[in-house]
Amino acid sequence: MNGRRRKHWGWGWADEQPSPDEVRAAAAGLREHLGFGSVEVEAPAPVGTLRAPRLEVPGTLAAICSVDAHTRATHSYGASYRDVVRGFRGAFDAPTDVVARPGNEEELEAVLEWAVAEGAAVIPFGGGTSVVGGVEPSVPDSYPGVLTVDVSALDRVLEVDSVSLAARIQAGATLPAIEEQLRPHGLTLRFYPQSFEFVTLGGAIATRGGGHFATGPTHIDDFVESVRALTPAGWWESLRLPSSGAGPSPDRLMLGSEGALGVITEAWVRVLHRPAFRAAAAVHFPTFWEGAAAARAVVQSGLRPANCRLIDPDEARLTFAGDGSVAILLLAFESGVDVAGTLMGHAVKLCREGGGTPVEPRGEGGGASEVWRESFFRAPYLRDTFVAMGVMSETFETAITWERFETFVSSVLGATREAVGHPGHVSCRLTHVYADGCAPYFTVVAPVARGFELERWSEVKRVASEAILAGGGTITHHHAVGRDHLPWYRSQRPQAFNRAMTEAKRAVDPGSAMNPGVLFD
Amino acid sequence: MNGRRRKHWGWGWADEQPSPDEVRAAAAGLREHLGFGSVEVEAPAPVGTLRAPRLEVPGTLAAICSVDAHTRATHSYGASYRDVVRGFRGAFDAPTDVVARPGNEEELEAVLEWAVAEGAAVIPFGGGTSVVGGVEPSVPDSYPGVLTVDVSALDRVLEVDSVSLAARIQAGATLPAIEEQLRPHGLTLRFYPQSFEFVTLGGAIATRGGGHFATGPTHIDDFVESVRALTPAGWWESLRLPSSGAGPSPDRLMLGSEGALGVITEAWVRVLHRPAFRAAAAVHFPTFWEGAAAARAVVQSGLRPANCRLIDPDEARLTFAGDGSVAILLLAFESGVDVAGTLMGHAVKLCREGGGTPVEPRGEGGGASEVWRESFFRAPYLRDTFVAMGVMSETFETAITWERFETFVSSVLGATREAVGHPGHVSCRLTHVYADGCAPYFTVVAPVARGFELERWSEVKRVASEAILAGGGTITHHHAVGRDHLPWYRSQRPQAFNRAMTEAKRAVDPGSAMNPGVLFD
Repeated sequence: MNGRRRKHWGWGWADEQPSPDEVRAAAAGLREHLGFGSVEVEAPAPVGTLRAPRLEVPGTLAAICSVDAHTRATHSYGASYRDVVRGFRGAFDAPTDVVARPGNEEELEAVLEWAVAEGAAVIPFGGGTSVVGGVEPSVPDSYPGVLTVDVSALDRVLEVDSVSLAARIQAGATLPAIEEQLRPHGLTLRFYPQSFEFVTLGGAIATRGGGHFATGPTHIDDFVESVRALTPAGWWESLRLPSSGAGPSPDRLMLGSEGALGVITEAWVRVLHRPAFRAAAAVHFPTFWEGAAAARAVVQSGLRPANCRLIDPDEARLTFAGDGSVAILLLAFESGVDVAGTLMGHAVKLCREGGGTPVEPRGEGGGASEVWRESFFRAPYLRDTFVAMGVMSETFETAITWERFETFVSSVLGATREAVGHPGHVSCRLTHVYADGCAPYFTVVAPVARGFELERWSEVKRVASEAILAGGGTITHHHAVGRDHLPWYRSQRPQAFNRAMTEAKRAVDPGSAMNPGVLFD
Repeated sequence: MNGRRRKHWGWGWADEQPSPDEVRAAAAGLREHLGFGSVEVEAPAPVGTLRAPRLEVPGTLAAICSVDAHTRATHSYGASYRDVVRGFRGAFDAPTDVVARPGNEEELEAVLEWAVAEGAAVIPFGGGTSVVGGVEPSVPDSYPGVLTVDVSALDRVLEVDSVSLAARIQAGATLPAIEEQLRPHGLTLRFYPQSFEFVTLGGAIATRGGGHFATGPTHIDDFVESVRALTPAGWWESLRLPSSGAGPSPDRLMLGSEGALGVITEAWVRVLHRPAFRAAAAVHFPTFWEGAAAARAVVQSGLRPANCRLIDPDEARLTFAGDGSVAILLLAFESGVDVAGTLMGHAVKLCREGGGTPVEPRGEGGGASEVWRESFFRAPYLRDTFVAMGVMSETFETAITWERFETFVSSVLGATREAVGHPGHVSCRLTHVYADGCAPYFTVVAPVARGFELERWSEVKRVASEAILAGGGTITHHHAVGRDHLPWYRSQRPQAFNRAMTEAKRAVDPGSAMNPGVLFD
C-alpha cells in the first residue's frame, strides 16, 4: 500500500528484490561460507489465483476494503521461515478473505461492527512481521470468513510532549516513520527490534515486542504510558500516567494481547533525547560460558549496558563477527551525561576478571560491533536467499534464570543439533541480560530437501520447544505466542490465570471475533 | 501473634506504646512546633466487647482460628487515619468474625474451602498496614460473615539462589524478617516502604507497594519473578523466569489484585548484593518548582538516583529537615562498582544549573537526609500522638506527567488547603521520579474537633481526590485502591477493562468470596 508494494513472500519491498543473477551470486557466496546449500536457486512462484473471498463487503465499506490477490496474499502470512517458504511457493491455500484499511477510528468502528455482525474472524495487522503465526487467517471452519484489519493508514505521531518526553502515536506507524516524525523534535523512540523496518507500534504493543538493547528500556512494555484500543464491546483507553498503583494495570492486560482483545489504535509512549555519549567495546572469551558469567557479573554489579550481546563461537563465524575460535561479548553504554566511558571501564574490568580479552579500542563503532549490527538488520533479507537455495534458516528464543543457564542452553543446543543433523548449524547468542537471568536466542541454518521445508522445520521446532520446556524456559521471550507457540504456551500458563483470561476475553469479545487461535483456545 | 501483641489501634507493638506522661510530653513539643493541637491528650479506649462472631468455626479448623476480641479488633482495620481514630476510640462496630492463621498451604486450602462453602467473605491479611481500607471487613449484608486470613505464619525465606540473585519467600514474611533471613547470604531485598516494619511480601504484591527509592527497582512489581496464590478455583502459580513475552503476564494480573482474586502464598523475588558504594547530597532550591525541574533534568539525563526526594518548604519545616525558606532535594546514588560519586557529581551539576545550592558534603549520611529518614520511619508512630492531641494527620499521593505537574500540584494544594482551612498545613513532596513524570505525595496536618475526625477527613479526602481526578492524576500511585479509593477508581479505569476484570475475577472466584468491595463493584 502507500503506492509501494511489499513482496508477496519473504522480507522487504517488491521493488528491492534482487535480480535472479544477484540471488545466484549471493547463493554461491553463502554456499562457500556454509559448505552447503544449492547454487541452483529456485525462483519464487507468483501469488496465482486465490480462493474466492467468503465475505461480501458492503458498499459502504468498499472504499477501505480490498479483495485483490496481492493484498490478500501479503496479509495472510507473517515473517517466519514457514511463512517465507509458503509465500515463496505461492502456497496461499487459506488466505484472508478481505483486507480492510481504515483511515480513521470511525472507519475502524464501522468495519469492526460489520465483521462482528457477520460472525467473521477479525485479525489486526500491523507490519506483518509476526514470526509465530500471529496474523495467519487459520481459524476454525465455524467462522464464515476472515477480515484482516490493516492499521497502516493510522501512521501519525499525533502529539509530542517535549517536557515529559512522550508522544501520542497511532498504532499503524512503523518504527522508521516514528523516528522520522520525532527527529525534528530531537527525540527518538529508540526501539530497535530486528524487524525495525516494518514493525508498527501497535504490533509491538500487541506482541510485547523487544528491542535490541540488552537492558531497559528495551521491551515495548517499558515505553507505554497508555493504550487506546477498540474491542467488540467498545473502546478501551487507559489514563496517560507515568506510573500508577491502581489495581492490575489495564495496559499490562493489553500488552501481549496479540489482537485477541481488540484493535490497538494509538498509545502514549515514552521517548528520549538522543544519548549524547556512547562507548562500545568487544571482548573475546575462550568459551560461551565464561562470556555469560562475565555478562552476569556486569549486570549484577548494577551496570546497565545498552548492548551486552554475547555471541557463541559458531554464530560469530556464521555472521563474520569472528573466526569461530572464541565467544564475543559486544558491549555498549549510552548516557545523557558524560559517564558512558566510565561505565564501560568498569564493565571491561569485570570482563577481564572473568577471563575476557578486550579486542577493540573503546569508543564509537567499528570492528565486530559494526559487523554484527549490519548482519543483524540484514538477516531477514538473507533468509530469502537461503530459501531459494534450499537452506533452512530460522531462530527461536527463550529466557531462563542464571542458575539453570548452562545446563539449559547445553540441553537445548544438544537436542536441536541432533534434530538438525550434520552439516547444519545451531548457534546461540544472548540478546537480553537481566540481573537474574538472560534471553538465549538460537539460530538454525541447515540444508533441507526442497518441498520438505515445513515438515523438517516443524520437527526441529518441536524438539527445540520441548527441550526449552523441559529446562524451565519460557516458550517465548519476545517473539510472542501466536498460533505457533500455543501448544507449548498451554502447558506454561497457570491454569487459573487461563480461566481468568478466557473470561476476560469473553467480556470484551463475546463472539470470539478477535484473532481466534492466538493465546486462547 | 508470635507471642507479641500489636496495639489494637494505631502503629506498633502494645509493649512499645509510650506512657501517658510520655505522650503528654510529646504533645507539648508538637503543639509548640505546630502552633495547634491540645496538650490535654486523650487516652485510647479499650477494645471492649465485640459483636458475637457470625461464623461458627468447625472443630477441624479450631486450632488455626481465633475469635477473641483483641485478635478480631487488630484484624479489622488497616493503618489509615480513619483506622487509627476508630481504633483509638474502640469503635469496632463491624469487626471481622473469625481470624484464621494457617501454618501451611494445606491449612489455607482447608480454611478457604470452608469459608467459600459458607458463602463468607474472605479477606487476606498481611501486615495490616493498608491505608485505603483494603482489609476492612466492610462487606454487603448478603454475606453471612467475614473470615480474615492472616498469612503471618507463612513467614519463611524458603530458598535463596545466590547465582541468579533471587529468593523464594512466603507471603507472610515481614520485610524485617526477610532482611534478617537474607543477611547471612549477604543479600537484601532492598524494598523500603514507610510501613517497612510490618509490611509483608504478599501484602506488597497484592497492593503493588512502592519502596522509598526514587527510581527502580523500587515498586514491588520490579522484584517479582513469579507468584503462587490460592484462588477459590484452585492454585495460580506462574513460572519462575527473569522475563517472558508470552501473552499478558499472569504476575501482572496478580500484582495489585488486593486479595480479590486469591490469597498469595509465596513468590520468587529478585534480591541484591548490598550496594558497595553510596553518595548522598542535599540541594536547596528557592522554590519547589525549581527543585522539581532539577529532579526532572536529573532523571531525563538518564541518571537513576536511589533517592531523589523533593520536599517543599512547608514539609521541610514540619519534619525539621529545613527552616521552611527553601525546598530541599535529597539525592543519593548507590552502585555495585565505584561510580556513585561520579554519578552524584553529574546530578549535582544539573541541580546547580537549575538554581540549586548543595548544602552538604557529598558522602555518607548526615544532615537533612538523616533527619528526613528518621522522620520518615517515625511518622506512623507520630500520628498516634496526633490523634490523642486532636490533630488530624494523613497523607495522600498520586502521579502525574511533568507537563501538567506545576498546574496540577498547585491545584491540588489549593483545593486541599481550602478544605483544611487555617491553621492547618498541607505540604507536598515528590517520592518517586520518572523521566516522564513524578509521584507527588501530600501531607495534611491540622487541628480537628474531637469526635469529628472521620467527618472532617472524609471531606478533605473528597476535595483532594476530586482535584486529583480533575487534574488527570491517578487516584493512587502506590497506596492501592482498597475500599477508600473505589469511588474515584471507578471513573478512572477503562470501562472495557473493568468488564474484562470483573469476568476474570468471576472465573477464579465464582462466589465473590475474595475481599468483596475492593477494586470491583
